[in-house]
Amino acid sequence: MQRVLATLSYDGARFHGYQRQPHDRSVQGEVEKALATIHKATSWPSTSSGRTDAGVHGIRQPVHFDTPLTIPEDRWPKALNSLLPDDIYVHTCRHVPQSFHARYDAVGKEYIYRLTTAKEYNVFKRHYICHNDRTLNMAAMQAAASQFIGTHDFTSFSSPKTDVVDKVRTIYLIDIAKEGDDWTFRFIGSGFLYQMVRVLMGTLLEVGSGTRQRDEIETIMAEKNRALAGKTAPAHGLYLSQVFYDEQILADYVKKFQ
Amino acid sequence: MQRVLATLSYDGARFHGYQRQPHDRSVQGEVEKALATIHKATSWPSTSSGRTDAGVHGIRQPVHFDTPLTIPEDRWPKALNSLLPDDIYVHTCRHVPQSFHARYDAVGKEYIYRLTTAKEYNVFKRHYICHNDRTLNMAAMQAAASQFIGTHDFTSFSSPKTDVVDKVRTIYLIDIAKEGDDWTFRFIGSGFLYQMVRVLMGTLLEVGSGTRQRDEIETIMAEKNRALAGKTAPAHGLYLSQVFYDEQILADYVKKFQ
Repeated sequence: MQRVLATLSYDGARFHGYQRQPHDRSVQGEVEKALATIHKATSWPSTSSGRTDAGVHGIRQPVHFDTPLTIPEDRWPKALNSLLPDDIYVHTCRHVPQSFHARYDAVGKEYIYRLTTAKEYNVFKRHYICHNDRTLNMAAMQAAASQFIGTHDFTSFSSPKTDVVDKVRTIYLIDIAKEGDDWTFRFIGSGFLYQMVRVLMGTLLEVGSGTRQRDEIETIMAEKNRALAGKTAPAHGLYLSQVFYDEQILADYVKKFQ
Repeated sequence: MQRVLATLSYDGARFHGYQRQPHDRSVQGEVEKALATIHKATSWPSTSSGRTDAGVHGIRQPVHFDTPLTIPEDRWPKALNSLLPDDIYVHTCRHVPQSFHARYDAVGKEYIYRLTTAKEYNVFKRHYICHNDRTLNMAAMQAAASQFIGTHDFTSFSSPKTDVVDKVRTIYLIDIAKEGDDWTFRFIGSGFLYQMVRVLMGTLLEVGSGTRQRDEIETIMAEKNRALAGKTAPAHGLYLSQVFYDEQILADYVKKFQ
């Protein structure tokens, strides 16, 4: 068997999340349906770097699968794309050792949150950027974000609906950029808990719009109580941007924004 | 009765075109449903500047309707938007005289066609920009486009499926702009026949990719035969951008691109 690592993008708008579900449309379900067809099987397993919620998008989601077929790695994208629906696209495939694991070998992940403070609603961006009515204070959000950097217990900033016990994660970078009315929030960390980026975002937005103080973060973190943090920001502004498997590449990438 | 002129945008992806249809979802159908609710009626008529096909988008589509209600003009957008689905948005409403007509009073229209020659398919833009695999020659397309400018019989460059007899229209401007891999084709004219912008686009693309000569246009025009022109370009790259009701404003706008 040959292990293949695929990187795919998907528009999360019409999926009930990444993970396969018995009745609802999922990214994993569509990918495995295509793999099953190629392998002339009734089902074919795949393993992604992680899940994303309904509405959340993927820019470069890594997924590995094993195959007995001798298809050259550069032919895999075309084979898969010809079978996938138009809201999933395989960008690259490459052969990896059997020891490689898309989830366990990840050393870092980048998420991007897109937000606009444009006055008018834009029908063409409604699934791709979160609309925020309030004026945002960049400096206040940057000050709050700096308190998330480093290794912390993020219990207060993630959904309690999880079996994960260890809530300690390391955030390497939160970069906030603005172009006109459109904001890009970039989160790079060792890994993120369930809904963690959306809770961090929701909390930053409350700081940015002045309904929460920038110096509250440390206290909230220490309390380990989800109820104290901000609202979970809407899913449709969130993108799993990329996953890192090499510490040096990750470190070099983070440096670009520092 | 007060006549109100609304300008609305819509994402054409999930509509079977602008025009109301008995069973399929249409922009007009949704707008009139909202108007009927506001007027506590079973239906309420509206008149747009024209129709757009399934998949074609609207950036600023003018629509007029009459109302016995004394709602101030700046309150209408909020009232309508609260009832409209998320892929239609009313930007402005203003009171106009009973003599005003959204279709008959139009003196010009602007359509925009978006196209990308990016190598990779982008799932997030699949409904909003037409993907073109071939390299395009800007100069060849500009030379071909210049032959469309002016007053001509556009029988060869529009769908024969129409009751319209007079196929003479005036094109004031075709502007081609490129930013990275993304192209914007701007068409401004007195009016456009059924599928005319898409046939002009399809023909320009054939010239741009070298499968048709730039000097064929005049001959095709003279033949008045749709079969001689290029393929109809896909609907999802096309946007009704704006409609002009004032000759001077139209002339000033056209000058900006000359």
